[in-house]
Amino acid sequence: MLIYVVDLLGVAVFAATGALAAGRKSLDFLGVLVIAAVTAIGGGTIRDLLLDRHPVFWIADPTYLVVILAATAMTLFYVRFYRPPEKALLVADALGLALFTISGARIAEDFHLGGIIEVFMGTVTGAAGGVLRDVLSADIPIILRSGEIYATAALAGAVVYVLLQRIGVDSTVSVLAGMGVTAGLRLAAIRWGLTLPVVRLSDRKGDLSG
Amino acid sequence: MLIYVVDLLGVAVFAATGALAAGRKSLDFLGVLVIAAVTAIGGGTIRDLLLDRHPVFWIADPTYLVVILAATAMTLFYVRFYRPPEKALLVADALGLALFTISGARIAEDFHLGGIIEVFMGTVTGAAGGVLRDVLSADIPIILRSGEIYATAALAGAVVYVLLQRIGVDSTVSVLAGMGVTAGLRLAAIRWGLTLPVVRLSDRKGDLSG
Amino acid sequence: MLIYVVDLLGVAVFAATGALAAGRKSLDFLGVLVIAAVTAIGGGTIRDLLLDRHPVFWIADPTYLVVILAATAMTLFYVRFYRPPEKALLVADALGLALFTISGARIAEDFHLGGIIEVFMGTVTGAAGGVLRDVLSADIPIILRSGEIYATAALAGAVVYVLLQRIGVDSTVSVLAGMGVTAGLRLAAIRWGLTLPVVRLSDRKGDLSG
Repeated sequence: MLIYVVDLLGVAVFAATGALAAGRKSLDFLGVLVIAAVTAIGGGTIRDLLLDRHPVFWIADPTYLVVILAATAMTLFYVRFYRPPEKALLVADALGLALFTISGARIAEDFHLGGIIEVFMGTVTGAAGGVLRDVLSADIPIILRSGEIYATAALAGAVVYVLLQRIGVDSTVSVLAGMGVTAGLRLAAIRWGLTLPVVRLSDRKGDLSG
Repeated sequence: MLIYVVDLLGVAVFAATGALAAGRKSLDFLGVLVIAAVTAIGGGTIRDLLLDRHPVFWIADPTYLVVILAATAMTLFYVRFYRPPEKALLVADALGLALFTISGARIAEDFHLGGIIEVFMGTVTGAAGGVLRDVLSADIPIILRSGEIYATAALAGAVVYVLLQRIGVDSTVSVLAGMGVTAGLRLAAIRWGLTLPVVRLSDRKGDLSG
Repeated sequence: MLIYVVDLLGVAVFAATGALAAGRKSLDFLGVLVIAAVTAIGGGTIRDLLLDRHPVFWIADPTYLVVILAATAMTLFYVRFYRPPEKALLVADALGLALFTISGARIAEDFHLGGIIEVFMGTVTGAAGGVLRDVLSADIPIILRSGEIYATAALAGAVVYVLLQRIGVDSTVSVLAGMGVTAGLRLAAIRWGLTLPVVRLSDRKGDLSG
């Protein structure tokens, strides 16, 4: 029960950050709602499709869609009168990322597909919603922006969780450690402006795409 | 049989509008064909994948692909000599949107997943093809352009259809009412230049996406 | 066994070209890795999802992900010191395209869905990875760039393969002929700068998308 409430809270936070991100563009309500929904459930949906896990989580339980609708409406109502509570939302977003990443890795665990797939599915669950949001907005996706520590934080937390599980650490401890690494890395990156080094090719003639 | 023919006509119309939309870019024939196909069957494909409805409708019956090929070739041939019949195509596109939306909602009905999912799948079936087309063309998707009443028309028609079905209205009446709302809203929006109000955030500092 | 090794080589080559293509943008390592992975396994993943073929090939065998990781790291290491071996990579990419296209068509064959779907799945397996890569990079996808003979080469090889199989030609001959057509067309296009004629609409007022 607690897990379910926390999960819905995570969806609400992601929907709210999605709705705020949509504020860069001039959208109508449906447009904002689509961006909010894609941000909130996009990662989990890709995970479920890849794992052939049906019904997809929000189809099995449409409460998720209701929560997204409510969170989007409340966000738009709130920012009409007040400044968005930036710091609180950044912290909430980091916690949502941590929550989704580890829950995604745990879901993959049930399929017994090995540690690499678990790490992969955790990272996708946490970070892919933001990628879909950016693709729809015709932006460069967040994980492709130079040095932004976002998907990397998800990846690191998922690796820690999977490794701890493999060596037999208690499940609750693994979950908390994995979430701590993801949330901690993301918050540290925001707090101290940390970025990853950018790859520079010595010669871009190697581009074969055109 | 009639339903099948109408369905293929809807695919042909969507393919034609997709091919015309592709005319903004300088594409070769295969590029135009890809855009036409994505516009015509993209929404239904996403619906089938989300619902785990296999084989996907156009895999089960490749006639859809043949119709797309023919419609694209005919469109390109036609516009080489004549101006596209703009008004007829806008009306046909609105009817196609109405048809796909309600048929999408009806397909979801068979899965007994509740009204919210039915509305969602109807809207996706009708409007997602246009979103995919725009994402592939690196455009801002149609449903995210300010105030355009397109997906909103699909959504409204799907809601009307699902509500009428819920209160026990005859199926044929529900279908016609739902399609009427979608097509009517879309055509009214084109005819009188109606748009939805655009959401403006009081403070775009709330953007957490970067 | 030989087929498996060749398949992994194809993935490695596609990952390398994806990593080099990512060099146009300033990305961190994870960003380059995502682009490399999407290029290498995106087409096959879409094929498996559409065919409901689970587990998806790289979930069934995570060796693919390990190969992508190694190929990306080696590519980035290599281009730090040397110019990318452009010609060798262009040839390798053409061979990879041929290999993936025909293997995709062969996989679809097992589902007995008819020649059109086999051609479609072959083309998607070969060319869709490049499309996803470009969508993520917010570029105009390769198959939509004017006249580039890439997906067209895949399509032509898949058609040849499927036709030869239909008329009862020996399987090995069909495979080699199909791959020869795809690789030959692609290499000829590169070598002599061949492009396809671009479609021009007489009147772009026909655009219904807005």
